[in-house]
Amino acid sequence: MKKIINQPKQAVSQLLDGIAFAHSDLLTRIPKTGVLLRKYQENKVALIAGGGTGHEPAHSGYLGKGMLAASVNGPIFVPPSPEEILLAIEKSDQGPGVLLIIKNFDVDVASFLKAEQLAIEKGHQVKHVIVNDDCSIDKYNFKKRRRGVAGTVFVHKILGAAAHKGYSLEELETLGMDVVRSMNTLGVALYPGSIPGKDQPLFTLTDDQISFGIGIHGESGYRTEPLYSSELLANELVNKLKVHYDLAPDKQFAILINGLGGTPLMELYIFANDVRQLMALSDLNIAYSKVGNYMTSTNMAGVSLTFLEIKDEAWLDFLEEPVQTYAWNN
Amino acid sequence: MKKIINQPKQAVSQLLDGIAFAHSDLLTRIPKTGVLLRKYQENKVALIAGGGTGHEPAHSGYLGKGMLAASVNGPIFVPPSPEEILLAIEKSDQGPGVLLIIKNFDVDVASFLKAEQLAIEKGHQVKHVIVNDDCSIDKYNFKKRRRGVAGTVFVHKILGAAAHKGYSLEELETLGMDVVRSMNTLGVALYPGSIPGKDQPLFTLTDDQISFGIGIHGESGYRTEPLYSSELLANELVNKLKVHYDLAPDKQFAILINGLGGTPLMELYIFANDVRQLMALSDLNIAYSKVGNYMTSTNMAGVSLTFLEIKDEAWLDFLEEPVQTYAWNN
Repeated sequence: MKKIINQPKQAVSQLLDGIAFAHSDLLTRIPKTGVLLRKYQENKVALIAGGGTGHEPAHSGYLGKGMLAASVNGPIFVPPSPEEILLAIEKSDQGPGVLLIIKNFDVDVASFLKAEQLAIEKGHQVKHVIVNDDCSIDKYNFKKRRRGVAGTVFVHKILGAAAHKGYSLEELETLGMDVVRSMNTLGVALYPGSIPGKDQPLFTLTDDQISFGIGIHGESGYRTEPLYSSELLANELVNKLKVHYDLAPDKQFAILINGLGGTPLMELYIFANDVRQLMALSDLNIAYSKVGNYMTSTNMAGVSLTFLEIKDEAWLDFLEEPVQTYAWNN
Repeated sequence: MKKIINQPKQAVSQLLDGIAFAHSDLLTRIPKTGVLLRKYQENKVALIAGGGTGHEPAHSGYLGKGMLAASVNGPIFVPPSPEEILLAIEKSDQGPGVLLIIKNFDVDVASFLKAEQLAIEKGHQVKHVIVNDDCSIDKYNFKKRRRGVAGTVFVHKILGAAAHKGYSLEELETLGMDVVRSMNTLGVALYPGSIPGKDQPLFTLTDDQISFGIGIHGESGYRTEPLYSSELLANELVNKLKVHYDLAPDKQFAILINGLGGTPLMELYIFANDVRQLMALSDLNIAYSKVGNYMTSTNMAGVSLTFLEIKDEAWLDFLEEPVQTYAWNN
């Protein structure tokens, strides 16, 4: 696989240096660590997210006023150590405490909760929200198996705006759990991505196959079948998502159409247009929408669709509140 | 090629409907045309850009306060008709006139200049700037052969801020020509892109080949060779670009590191980090930088590097001025 890299083992450190160079107005890197800190400071609860790299612009693209205070970046697809997360907590805590936003993978959860424990022992107030929006593993009917995927950026945005508004740590924890419970995501892959230093793609698909229910680290989906059209793909995803909600005509949804990295924007917008029409036919009101590459899996081609039921009008205000970050556009 | 589309001949219209849906706060589509208009209105010179589609987020992503007033979108890689461009001029002209920003391809130039002539006959004040930043065809030493590529978005940004500040049509034309003369871009492709409805990629490269000097429609480059590392790639591009400038220690540059669509952000930032180090070694001062996918060629994997010598401090202010668009982040 041709990649614009140097030594693969240097890739993450050079990525972080590149981000710190390109966005020096917004953030700094703590040298020789995986921790990026926003420059903007306020005496409010600080939000921290992180995980393995390979999902750019997540999470560093969401650092800044109105979203995250720090990102903690591990190796590609491997979460950072508790020690690095602890460092990010210590550097970000302005007094009112720190909220960790964790994607629901066993290794991520273990590392972040260990850091939370260490930080509490050092006197910090720390709580967490575990995001598990992926509903592809629904046959188990077992919440713990749901992974944290693209919907995580909705959590960053809503909680980021609420933190900036002055919500307490406890209020943010409650809001975060409410948002996560109202959110479902389904993804599909057309072509596997590949990661620096590996000769092989993350998985294989034939020239006419797509995989439904894929994760963001190459995890397999629930069904493989041909790709017929954007409209039929939208139909499958909208139908699979809407069964998670008790529908009523006055309900409103925020939707996120997230590219997995290797799909052109043209296709994301064509898909968005189909989702729009299908949701209108199903009396699903779209109060807010976002289309783009927000949580990728290196250069995997594919798309995910996230539904967030708006349970409180304040959530819409939080989504729309202007921010200063490099990857979330107002 | 697997694509998230419906009928290929509907792709452009559905793309524009998708954009109009997703960014209804910023823009509207004139129904059944390739014209998108920003919603923000001001009694200033209106900037219009366009060309074939397949370069998303160019140019519609730059519609809004502080950048473009309209985009005119043709078929994939084919410029719009003079009649559609004329329609965009008529709808955008607020009195102080319209400036067309044209990428230097014969068919684009012909269509836009014909529209300019038609609009002038109808009583509009119209001028244009032709962007020809691609310096890969330097062996001809013949400006007319230089194509308009990624640097076009720097023209949108600088002229957009100047127009918003109240520059006249003549002042914008002069500024535009000054910026274009100070700008050079070189691109490299790792993997060809592919366009909806075509079974074959745009061109072919073997598993260890990259092509230097590639265009944004699959035009061939000046040399094909193996990809050794990000650092050596950066070295080649920085060296080829800097020969276009008389260097002095106090000169400042804005740089654009543009992904062609299929290259992960991780690689763009690693490359940015190498460019930063090489420019520092060459005493090339970077006063402004931008990294991301701004002018793509569907899902071609690759990157281009643009140098813009800052001839006037006002250009930096114009680059940094906040905007309201969906693809240019502040």
